[in-house]
Amino acid sequence: MELQLGEVAALLRQNDNYRILTHKNPDGDTLGSGFALCLGLRSLGKQVAMGLPDGLPERYRFLCPDGEWENDGSPAMTISVDVAERGLLGRLSGEKVDLCVDHHLANTLAQEAGYSLVDPNASSSGEIVYTLLREMGVSLDRQMADCLYTALSTDTGCFRYSNTTARAHRIAADLMELGAAAERINRDMFETKSRPRLELERLVLDGMEYHFDGRCVLVQVTRDQINAIGADNTTFDGIPAITRQIQGVELGIVLRQEEDGSYKVSVRSSQKVNAAQFCQAFGGGGHARAAGCSFTGDPEEIKRKLLAEAERWVG
Amino acid sequence: MELQLGEVAALLRQNDNYRILTHKNPDGDTLGSGFALCLGLRSLGKQVAMGLPDGLPERYRFLCPDGEWENDGSPAMTISVDVAERGLLGRLSGEKVDLCVDHHLANTLAQEAGYSLVDPNASSSGEIVYTLLREMGVSLDRQMADCLYTALSTDTGCFRYSNTTARAHRIAADLMELGAAAERINRDMFETKSRPRLELERLVLDGMEYHFDGRCVLVQVTRDQINAIGADNTTFDGIPAITRQIQGVELGIVLRQEEDGSYKVSVRSSQKVNAAQFCQAFGGGGHARAAGCSFTGDPEEIKRKLLAEAERWVG
Repeated sequence: MELQLGEVAALLRQNDNYRILTHKNPDGDTLGSGFALCLGLRSLGKQVAMGLPDGLPERYRFLCPDGEWENDGSPAMTISVDVAERGLLGRLSGEKVDLCVDHHLANTLAQEAGYSLVDPNASSSGEIVYTLLREMGVSLDRQMADCLYTALSTDTGCFRYSNTTARAHRIAADLMELGAAAERINRDMFETKSRPRLELERLVLDGMEYHFDGRCVLVQVTRDQINAIGADNTTFDGIPAITRQIQGVELGIVLRQEEDGSYKVSVRSSQKVNAAQFCQAFGGGGHARAAGCSFTGDPEEIKRKLLAEAERWVG
Repeated sequence: MELQLGEVAALLRQNDNYRILTHKNPDGDTLGSGFALCLGLRSLGKQVAMGLPDGLPERYRFLCPDGEWENDGSPAMTISVDVAERGLLGRLSGEKVDLCVDHHLANTLAQEAGYSLVDPNASSSGEIVYTLLREMGVSLDRQMADCLYTALSTDTGCFRYSNTTARAHRIAADLMELGAAAERINRDMFETKSRPRLELERLVLDGMEYHFDGRCVLVQVTRDQINAIGADNTTFDGIPAITRQIQGVELGIVLRQEEDGSYKVSVRSSQKVNAAQFCQAFGGGGHARAAGCSFTGDPEEIKRKLLAEAERWVG
């Protein structure tokens, strides 16, 4: 059942014992909004535990309050935050969800949950949780402000992506006035690169092949290369986007060899190419500017197929 | 004479004919706030021309209103925007400045100008011009909003640097509601890389030498390399900062060979190293986290000297 903000606030005030679930492969939004909600409810005297399918990565440790926060007990109510579908709960995907809080347009978990608060116009789940905590009369402290700022900033690419709204900026202003360590958070989230990440960027820059007068760029990264630099699949976050940043490139294609030898292909495009349609030609799909598909077989043959399709768009 | 905001607004309403000067090697703040002031004054029926020491770079062309905007006539009043010292006026440094509008703490032009409005607490000159136009009762349109958004966003590194304030976020929110094309502007300003820039990044990643267990990274770029990829000195903007982004690096050193064969050395550091003191050892200087110095002579000998000093800090 879809609830209004005021109804959710009333519901959360009524109960006393919660467990908050975040999504697997966690990002700043699911963790930041999850911990903010946890801290906010605790500040009202509630018992709250967190359920993190993949644990808490070291770089997000600062979001976590001191003391106990994970607990497998039986809460009165389970709340998912920023989880668009059941599968994203990973090892916790068997859990019953009582309230689904999210900002993804294509949310399927809300239908299964007892109650839902889904706002696709919100920049981030952090924005929804901020509004909810305000509605509940929670007095936001510096730790909650850090959590919510992290959620907003990471999900908007530091106020850069198209989901950035005037409202997101105004909330960021409020959070900074509450003491959010914006500069440090942004430095840690956006300006710190691991050695494997740096080596991967180097590999990608070294391996770029330009086609069709520079309108298409293609890069292949083998599993041996990935293993040699100590990278894993999360090291690739944001890597395909590098191809589209190059002046004149309309179509960027990154081939990543998987453990089983198959190739995962990520496609990024400018306005002139529909990446989803490009990938549909190979049984894949995605968004207009970012899509993907998979291949097995000889990499040279895969590249020939990709370039033949590329020629139709930018040849 | 230092004026208050209301006094500057009154002064600008009184006169009818202006010329606005920006600084050489122009950035988004000087151009964005300059064109916004030009458009705002014109909307009140004033005659306004722009004086750009280095012209208008292609990537900032969108800031420029249609029609005539540059003019060497004799205005009643000349206003400098975002110009911290006379030398930064470049080929226009002989001009008399009647009003100096700026946000740099170390501004020396204000003392020479007839009047000044300098606010070092403002994130950008764009923030000051926004406040001034509001004070004058200018009805901000979409073009002015684009100019001011560009000024704010570029000078704060898209709301990332330490000069980003709650007020800067609130102004950004206002500008987005006025129709500023935030997403496009940020993409053009931050996410588009020229081929020479990409090649330079590749050179730098390929050339990184790690010292002292990865706490110091040193890169040398020769003039031949720079010429081969078609880069110039402006292509280096932000390049030294890459060294400091690497996890574990406390001290990043980039040696760039100049046309005359000498080496310009850029030093970036974490909290543990004072870059200014590091460079003072070689007759250079700068800020605590970003400084520079120069050398002539054999590059291997220069590197030995730099690494000997580096050992004192991170050895």
